[in-house]
Amino acid sequence: MNPPDVRTLVFDVFGTVVDWRSSVIAQGRALGADKALEVDWDAFVDDWKAAYRPGMDKVNSGEWPWMKVAQIYRRALDLLLEKYGVTGLSEAETSNFTDAWCRLDPWPDSVAGLTRLKRKYVLCTLSNGDFACLVGMAKHAGLPWDCVLTAENFRRYKPEAAVYQGAIDLLGGRPQDIMLVAAHNYDLAAAASYGMRTAFIPRPAEYGGGQTTDLGPEGDWDVVARDMEDLADRLGA
Amino acid sequence: MNPPDVRTLVFDVFGTVVDWRSSVIAQGRALGADKALEVDWDAFVDDWKAAYRPGMDKVNSGEWPWMKVAQIYRRALDLLLEKYGVTGLSEAETSNFTDAWCRLDPWPDSVAGLTRLKRKYVLCTLSNGDFACLVGMAKHAGLPWDCVLTAENFRRYKPEAAVYQGAIDLLGGRPQDIMLVAAHNYDLAAAASYGMRTAFIPRPAEYGGGQTTDLGPEGDWDVVARDMEDLADRLGA
Repeated sequence: MNPPDVRTLVFDVFGTVVDWRSSVIAQGRALGADKALEVDWDAFVDDWKAAYRPGMDKVNSGEWPWMKVAQIYRRALDLLLEKYGVTGLSEAETSNFTDAWCRLDPWPDSVAGLTRLKRKYVLCTLSNGDFACLVGMAKHAGLPWDCVLTAENFRRYKPEAAVYQGAIDLLGGRPQDIMLVAAHNYDLAAAASYGMRTAFIPRPAEYGGGQTTDLGPEGDWDVVARDMEDLADRLGA
Repeated sequence: MNPPDVRTLVFDVFGTVVDWRSSVIAQGRALGADKALEVDWDAFVDDWKAAYRPGMDKVNSGEWPWMKVAQIYRRALDLLLEKYGVTGLSEAETSNFTDAWCRLDPWPDSVAGLTRLKRKYVLCTLSNGDFACLVGMAKHAGLPWDCVLTAENFRRYKPEAAVYQGAIDLLGGRPQDIMLVAAHNYDLAAAASYGMRTAFIPRPAEYGGGQTTDLGPEGDWDVVARDMEDLADRLGA
């Protein structure tokens, strides 16, 4: 891999750049304290996250019409509130808790690494999150994106071809000029299949203590980095 | 107008934020000096720009299929090189000169005003330029966008509804939360018709010395500002 060949880095965000699990659990606990709720928030958030991929798959298969992630999470939340016996939340409180997924804190290395990388590369998201969610998260977490692209721009979710190919077309048309940075092997495999370069960063605590997936690279990725600062080192930024 | 009601500012870019005419003329003169060409670059660039709106209108009407601005400008350039008797440019030189439209310098107040506005608002482009062009221009000119949206995201050009309504949907769904900043009354009229807030900034030198259009507000816009710094003053940023 010759780093100068790449002009643009696109990033998976949930898990790769931000620590969604700790962030949403913390907001659940704060809500629980405020409303005197007895809930195991670790289990609640793990259940909530588990509804995400099946929802996106239903959109990709056509079983569901196009639906923003906020709607997928809200449908799941309404079921989980019932399952966990939570009552007494107003519509505004429920809606605000759904938005917890857009108020996520970065991993400790993310902002420093991205800030260095931005001096040399165009930095763009390529996330399954909603566009407005990613824009708000960048303000919240200080993520210095040059531009934001998400599944919502293409009305399909990763790993559908339309997301990668749509991003390649918008960003200038040459897949080899673009590198996907992700903590998930399935995402890198899809990007590579469309000609993009690939960088893997393990995030072994993404799913909490018992994580068994994506602990290491499972493909011949162009770069494997320990974290975002190490990626900046390896790409000469 | 109560400024705190607005959360996001979207900007027309060509003419409103950057001085395309002086920037492209300067690049034409540099090319002419390099290749010993005898060309009136003011006239050449005015002719070139004049091909832009008709090209976009042909896309919007369906007479032409979807086509990026780079293609519209390239078609026009090939005709103009013949009209002005320019020969001897390589494909790389011709392609590079087409990209002159993405290497544009900001008006003197733009970066300072945008930097102040960014502390309080989400700043997003809403331009007819190509996505990659806008991303590259931001790096070139130091424009601190939070996100980039252009006609290319919607495959229609302003003032088609799909551009404004598509941006409203992506940015969160409430048109009254979004204000379009533009130097062109037609653009503000379209935005207002979809419920967006509006800010006019006159750019009386956009088309050179003899400009007769858009010298003042032609509608009841929410804000009229002298320049980008004055807009920051008026919006409390």
